[in-house]
This record gives sequence, C-alpha cells and structure tokens, in this order.
Amino acid sequence: MTYRPKDTDARIMHRLKIARGHLDKVISMVTDNVYCIDVMHQLQAVESGLRETGNLMLENHLKSCVADDIRQGKAEQSITEIMQVFKKKV
Amino acid sequence: MTYRPKDTDARIMHRLKIARGHLDKVISMVTDNVYCIDVMHQLQAVESGLRETGNLMLENHLKSCVADDIRQGKAEQSITEIMQVFKKKV
Amino acid sequence: MTYRPKDTDARIMHRLKIARGHLDKVISMVTDNVYCIDVMHQLQAVESGLRETGNLMLENHLKSCVADDIRQGKAEQSITEIMQVFKKKV
Amino acid sequence: MTYRPKDTDARIMHRLKIARGHLDKVISMVTDNVYCIDVMHQLQAVESGLRETGNLMLENHLKSCVADDIRQGKAEQSITEIMQVFKKKV
Repeated sequence: MTYRPKDTDARIMHRLKIARGHLDKVISMVTDNVYCIDVMHQLQAVESGLRETGNLMLENHLKSCVADDIRQGKAEQSITEIMQVFKKKV
Repeated sequence: MTYRPKDTDARIMHRLKIARGHLDKVISMVTDNVYCIDVMHQLQAVESGLRETGNLMLENHLKSCVADDIRQGKAEQSITEIMQVFKKKV
Repeated sequence: MTYRPKDTDARIMHRLKIARGHLDKVISMVTDNVYCIDVMHQLQAVESGLRETGNLMLENHLKSCVADDIRQGKAEQSITEIMQVFKKKV
Repeated sequence: MTYRPKDTDARIMHRLKIARGHLDKVISMVTDNVYCIDVMHQLQAVESGLRETGNLMLENHLKSCVADDIRQGKAEQSITEIMQVFKKKV
C-alpha cells in the first residue's frame, strides 16, 4: 500500500510510458544500425526522463510517507530508507 | 550506417531488452500501488542497466568509429561528438 | 543558524579536509605533468569524497531541520528546498 | 610525462584553483554553522566545477594521448584506460 495521490500517480505513469516509448526507439535504432552517437543521445533522453521520474517519486514520498512517519515518531527508519536510495544513485 | 560488430550489437540489444523488462515491472508496480521506496529501487535498477549499456556503446564507438576517424585524420570532429555526449551525461 | 550536532559537524569537517588534501594532490599532479589518466583517477577520488560528504549533510539535514519543520507544520517549504538540491545534483 | 599543451594545463589549473577556493568556502561555512541547505548548494558548486574540469582533462586526453596511441596501433590499452575512468564516474 502506498500514499501517492491519484494525480501524482498519473504524472509518474505518464512519464514512465514516455520513457518506455523512447527506450523502444533506442532498440529500433540499434536494430536499424543507426550511428552510435545518435543512439547514445536517444539513450540519454531515456535516462534523463527516468531521472526526472525518480525525482517526482521522491518528492511525493517525502511529502506523504516520510512526513507521516515523522509526525508519528518514526523518522529514523524512514530517513534510513531514503538514504539507501540516495547512496545507490547512479 | 555504423560499425558495431554483430556480437556487440547482440550484447547491447540483450541489455536494452532486460532494461525494458525492468521498466515494465516499474510500471506495473506503480499500477499496483507498491510502496514508493520499492518502486524507486526498481527504477534505479533500470537506470543502472541503461548506464552500463551506454558504457558498452561508448566503448564500442571508441574502438571502431573514433579509432577509424583518428587514423583517417578526422580526430577533431569525432572527439567533439564524444564530448557532447559526456557533457550531457546525467 | 543550523542544527548539526557537534559530532556530525566534526565528521563532515574531517571529510571536507580529506577532500581538500586530495584536491591539493590533483593540483600538484598537474603541476608535475603527471599522466592525464592518473590525474583523472585522483580527481574522481575528490569527487567521490565530496559526494559522500554531501550525503552525510543531507542525512543530517533530514533528521534535524526537515523533521523539525514537518513536526511544526512547515513540510512544504522544507521539502521544496531539499528537492532544489536534488534536481541540481550532478 | 604527459602531452597537455601549456594553455590547456593553464585552464585546468585555473579551474582547479577556483574549485579549491569554493571548497575552502564550504569549510568556513560549516565552521560558521551556516544553514545546511546553503552549504549543500556551495558544495554542489565545487562538484560541478570539478566535473567540468574532468571533462576538460578528458577532452585533452582524447585529442592528444589517445589519438597518438591509436595512430601508433595501441588503441586497445588506451581505450581500456579511458573506460576504467568512465565506469568509476560518480
């Protein structure tokens, strides 16, 4: 269960689907033997879109789950979870 | 036209398809209201896979196109192209 | 004014000073005409150290300032500030 | 020994010294108990400056050492070295 409001979920889903469309384009570019540099630029568009989606998820998580946890005295675990995500950040 | 050897293309394609599978999983996790932190970890798996794929593309590009360009006295343009990719790197 | 506990400040300061030492080493390597690749590895050690320091600052900020703000009903501004840091993240 | 032309070295050195100045500022901000978010923005300025310096080093390395290696039939080792730097990229 989660606390994402409907419209945030819709925005996240919209961006994920755009990223999947761009990723499908990367796959077809490789199939079609497109010049490496052009494929790499398209791949970066996917990465950039996913990064923005991750920021949107994070912002929503801070505003909902983390804020609730802190109000209920469970800051420690909540912040540890967030930091595990950051430390892995590529 | 490009210079990717068949097996490099196969490895790149394999990784791109794994990344697409992981991205589909992210989309279904959002649909199923899975906890934000778990979705973010799955999203990071996609980003990490795409980053490795980008490194593989780059390595192949350096070994083939860039090396050929340099041998043919066209280092300048080739290196400018590579640097444009790096500077955008997220 | 800030809310960093003394020992966190000491750890942050310790890491910043190590990073400065590594950066001084980079500068002396350039002065001494050391091979580019070796300088780049040393530069990455600085970047990696600063990144860990940033994560430590962030963790402390979440546990102190953000948690306090949320308890006092000022979640919105506090989370906006945090997100501005993330979105700029290199 | 290295192949950095004098003016590139001068530009790299200039940027490294600016980064060191910004890092000294971060250290004094922590000493003065400045608000975490402001310190993090200043730290990001250092990271951003070092990243640009790294790109400048890389561009020069590609144009000089790597291009020479490729012309002399030593592409393999040179590209392996470059890829080790990328894969560690934070």
